[in-house]
Amino acid sequence: MADVKVGIIMGSQSDWPTMKEAAAILDELGVAHESRIVSAHRTPDRLWEYGRAAVGRGLQVIIAGAGGAAHLPGMMASKTRVPVIGVPVQTRALNGVDSLYSIVQMPKGFPVATMAIGAAGAANAGLMAAQILALGDPALAERLDRWRSDLSASIPEEPADD
Amino acid sequence: MADVKVGIIMGSQSDWPTMKEAAAILDELGVAHESRIVSAHRTPDRLWEYGRAAVGRGLQVIIAGAGGAAHLPGMMASKTRVPVIGVPVQTRALNGVDSLYSIVQMPKGFPVATMAIGAAGAANAGLMAAQILALGDPALAERLDRWRSDLSASIPEEPADD
Amino acid sequence: MADVKVGIIMGSQSDWPTMKEAAAILDELGVAHESRIVSAHRTPDRLWEYGRAAVGRGLQVIIAGAGGAAHLPGMMASKTRVPVIGVPVQTRALNGVDSLYSIVQMPKGFPVATMAIGAAGAANAGLMAAQILALGDPALAERLDRWRSDLSASIPEEPADD
Amino acid sequence: MADVKVGIIMGSQSDWPTMKEAAAILDELGVAHESRIVSAHRTPDRLWEYGRAAVGRGLQVIIAGAGGAAHLPGMMASKTRVPVIGVPVQTRALNGVDSLYSIVQMPKGFPVATMAIGAAGAANAGLMAAQILALGDPALAERLDRWRSDLSASIPEEPADD
Amino acid sequence: MADVKVGIIMGSQSDWPTMKEAAAILDELGVAHESRIVSAHRTPDRLWEYGRAAVGRGLQVIIAGAGGAAHLPGMMASKTRVPVIGVPVQTRALNGVDSLYSIVQMPKGFPVATMAIGAAGAANAGLMAAQILALGDPALAERLDRWRSDLSASIPEEPADD
Amino acid sequence: MADVKVGIIMGSQSDWPTMKEAAAILDELGVAHESRIVSAHRTPDRLWEYGRAAVGRGLQVIIAGAGGAAHLPGMMASKTRVPVIGVPVQTRALNGVDSLYSIVQMPKGFPVATMAIGAAGAANAGLMAAQILALGDPALAERLDRWRSDLSASIPEEPADD
Amino acid sequence: MADVKVGIIMGSQSDWPTMKEAAAILDELGVAHESRIVSAHRTPDRLWEYGRAAVGRGLQVIIAGAGGAAHLPGMMASKTRVPVIGVPVQTRALNGVDSLYSIVQMPKGFPVATMAIGAAGAANAGLMAAQILALGDPALAERLDRWRSDLSASIPEEPADD
Amino acid sequence: MADVKVGIIMGSQSDWPTMKEAAAILDELGVAHESRIVSAHRTPDRLWEYGRAAVGRGLQVIIAGAGGAAHLPGMMASKTRVPVIGVPVQTRALNGVDSLYSIVQMPKGFPVATMAIGAAGAANAGLMAAQILALGDPALAERLDRWRSDLSASIPEEPADD
Repeated sequence: MADVKVGIIMGSQSDWPTMKEAAAILDELGVAHESRIVSAHRTPDRLWEYGRAAVGRGLQVIIAGAGGAAHLPGMMASKTRVPVIGVPVQTRALNGVDSLYSIVQMPKGFPVATMAIGAAGAANAGLMAAQILALGDPALAERLDRWRSDLSASIPEEPADD
Repeated sequence: MADVKVGIIMGSQSDWPTMKEAAAILDELGVAHESRIVSAHRTPDRLWEYGRAAVGRGLQVIIAGAGGAAHLPGMMASKTRVPVIGVPVQTRALNGVDSLYSIVQMPKGFPVATMAIGAAGAANAGLMAAQILALGDPALAERLDRWRSDLSASIPEEPADD
Repeated sequence: MADVKVGIIMGSQSDWPTMKEAAAILDELGVAHESRIVSAHRTPDRLWEYGRAAVGRGLQVIIAGAGGAAHLPGMMASKTRVPVIGVPVQTRALNGVDSLYSIVQMPKGFPVATMAIGAAGAANAGLMAAQILALGDPALAERLDRWRSDLSASIPEEPADD
Repeated sequence: MADVKVGIIMGSQSDWPTMKEAAAILDELGVAHESRIVSAHRTPDRLWEYGRAAVGRGLQVIIAGAGGAAHLPGMMASKTRVPVIGVPVQTRALNGVDSLYSIVQMPKGFPVATMAIGAAGAANAGLMAAQILALGDPALAERLDRWRSDLSASIPEEPADD
Repeated sequence: MADVKVGIIMGSQSDWPTMKEAAAILDELGVAHESRIVSAHRTPDRLWEYGRAAVGRGLQVIIAGAGGAAHLPGMMASKTRVPVIGVPVQTRALNGVDSLYSIVQMPKGFPVATMAIGAAGAANAGLMAAQILALGDPALAERLDRWRSDLSASIPEEPADD
Repeated sequence: MADVKVGIIMGSQSDWPTMKEAAAILDELGVAHESRIVSAHRTPDRLWEYGRAAVGRGLQVIIAGAGGAAHLPGMMASKTRVPVIGVPVQTRALNGVDSLYSIVQMPKGFPVATMAIGAAGAANAGLMAAQILALGDPALAERLDRWRSDLSASIPEEPADD
Repeated sequence: MADVKVGIIMGSQSDWPTMKEAAAILDELGVAHESRIVSAHRTPDRLWEYGRAAVGRGLQVIIAGAGGAAHLPGMMASKTRVPVIGVPVQTRALNGVDSLYSIVQMPKGFPVATMAIGAAGAANAGLMAAQILALGDPALAERLDRWRSDLSASIPEEPADD
Repeated sequence: MADVKVGIIMGSQSDWPTMKEAAAILDELGVAHESRIVSAHRTPDRLWEYGRAAVGRGLQVIIAGAGGAAHLPGMMASKTRVPVIGVPVQTRALNGVDSLYSIVQMPKGFPVATMAIGAAGAANAGLMAAQILALGDPALAERLDRWRSDLSASIPEEPADD
């Protein structure tokens, strides 16, 4: 089995409907990945251990999704130099603006590569992970180029009524 | 020397002009406290250790100030059951709305008692700490009652031109 | 019957679906509490009286939920030194941002320990009340520690498809 | 001396630079008024008494300015049926959006006639008070009409460079 | 038939489900009123004429509801010195924040007494109109006092599960 | 003298430092224009007359700048079918978000072509006016093309330290 | 067949339910138009080519709708001097505020004539295009005047219950 | 001379005071980079060419800073699969919220790794670029680890008065 290159982590089971879009893109592009629930607040030691081991396990990118106070991406970024991509999950009262601000406004020293709020952001997290991995993997680069040109080719010239 | 009852922690030296308002109130009310820099991202292990030791050291309240992504109060709340009071420090681009959302929007399980943005919030954090301690300290309760009635008595009847 | 330690108050019956989360947590943790409707605007004298009597009745924490202009928590904080925890109830047009600002932005002198908007915030208000009471109640502290470790233990390693 | 028709109240001395615009307009229009500091949180009993006595004293309009959590206008509106005009004072972190939401989002039963944030809002509070009084005072109505037509007449046709 | 004292105007038929709350309150309190569609943009001449005639017709208060750019209340305030109460109607994309800002942020000279967004604001517009009229109508003042004390009396002591 | 093609109107003298950017661009491009103060609230009849006469005078574009409630552009759009370009002037408390919402959120029937907040928006209003006029004026089209290519050519390859 | 005067472009098929309101208005007013899907990100070369050819094809107005990052209107404005009208499409998490800011906040040099968020904005884009074309087409000007007066005439005097 | 690995691009000279923080970090970490002004609107062909050539030139990361409508990062992301890191530059009226939304809310297919608003975000862009490059450069990984541990070590235990 291929070594896991990308770790997808999320604060709770309720983030999975959003975060599985990241997993789906990585599947499409043939990138080995794992999905884990790692809560910054409920399982901080799991977060600590996951971050501590990331480099040694050969993880190349960590995709972290969270909503509300959304501390998971930023705390992971403080525990490892593996690039962390953050996905703000949409929330009920504040629509994910809380998630977005909590993830993107990191202080100097600990960047989180923040994506759009919600499912489109999760899919883009998968693509960004692939773009990073493609820097050292020409075959993946080619698959990614094809994915992108297929996307462009799929756009019709004119809008259609239903 | 009196045992430290309240720990004031903050993400960086730049938070001190805000957070010293909390220390000043505790001084006024005669509550023993300490002030420490504990960065969620730059010194996560210090945060871990501070949280782990809090109950054993006899800390009764932790006041945590932070700005931007502002993970310090919430992470401390996940590490100890000692009540954590959060102070959103005002920021440059987002005026502290980012700090406020990151601190207040905690998930079920890990409350942070959030105060107003900036210096008034820090002063109120000191007062809230004293209100909590006063539940078990009648002398402090009396000093607090006097502080509050002095505040009310200091309000003039009419506004004055400068 | 155990003495009431925590008073849960709210501006109207329509706040109860949110605020009962606070009551549920206190029930789980075995903390004696009462629930009352106290409207800052419609029953200001009831608010006055509730606040005036709080210390004498032995209340240790007051949890106050309100939406919109949401004056209840702040007015209660001005009437008693018993710690007041505020819960911003979600509203229709402004999603609870109005409630949040009205509750959290208190002036120096009268802190309200503000929680997240909505049901998670109400549950956390119950937990914060328990954390405060646990400072003087070792048995409750133990129940709270177990509640927290149970919560952590309940988190699965991996997300599951429905 | 003419009977006081309009009470201008504010939460603190720091609101006076804003609220004196209301007093200035009432002076221009010859409306008898008084200015008082009445803090919802620091002097709640003063608020209670001011509201209780308003009708009996013959007050016709109360102008209330406050910033931040800004409970003064709404609490006054709950204590008297005398019309309350609210002025959101500009704040440091949230620019007065907090004041605006806290004042305008009143629940059914207790309207506050809310003005613009800051000094223009305070001046307009004075004008709105005069408009209300003019309903029963033809001489004031005439002065108000003249004030309004003078304002219109003062607008030049073309903008001028400095 | 009693003379019309209050004119309720709105920008379009779609505002009626909100604005009829104002009419309902005025009916409850026995205040004669009329409801008209007056669009600032689609029927500006109707607006002009309505404003021009207001004083002569004996209108004492104009309640104006509008959504989005919401120019109706402010334009009416520029055409007559009769007090104008503005109701921000909730909108689809911006939830009525656009309506609120467009109505409340009036420049010096032309106040609009702004209410909360949506139906509660419309009901409160009716109450504010009654409070203004009650200044010169002791019988209405009495009905209003009773309405307010009935409201207070209707609040139960404790919340009830459904 | 060339016939005036573009009318620049603004709510008050205080808008001129912003709006003169529109005049400057029109001067650069050789488009005849006039600048007038037309306040929607203080001089509504002037607004009415300006709008009524616009087509007959041969005005091809009206640029309208306003801040706060900012009713001028929308009201002008209701009075004439000449295209109206709106410029939201930056405000003190709300930074021009109030101006932007009041100008852009027009109901179906009366579009206002809204520009960016502040001076860049005013300059762009001048350019948009020129783009519209260039549809029927080949010489202006050429000057505009040159203005645009000059702008592109002026951008250095690399940033420079001061 | 009449030459196409107005090009309606949009970022994706999902924008069509909004953008077809622009097409419907142009149909009502007898303005020849075309509708195309041109994605700034997925088909940038199509955008380039559409912009490059616009003047030569005789396009007089381009209406561009997009949501989220919404780069289409601004990029089109950089490629051609044909006036570009931008329509912010409503989005899921941020309700179209993201679309609005991305479209309206253009830098000096490249104006986009921005309309309201959503379907009303799309309809108004069609009207604004017609207003621009009417400057050189008296017959269209007449149809537009009639459309506007019909709209005004359709407004009933009083609101009706359902 | 070392091959350029990171391209820093920005919309205008005025972005350089922000973006030079990215260059400074890359200098500290010994990463070869270039800085270019590439305006999405003023020099779209330069953007096209820069994006087209990026892979062939061996660029591994592109850091793009822009303010307001801020189309540069997203358009670059559409032209190349090289990872693009976006830096929202603070703006005058909207404080960079416009920049943030325009950069982060990219549609599925074209991720931009978004950083915090302003100078801290630019510095973090440099760090994120280094983290990506470190995946294939053990010596850089070591320098980065040291940079991070130096940062942690530089934090004092206690805050100091000035």
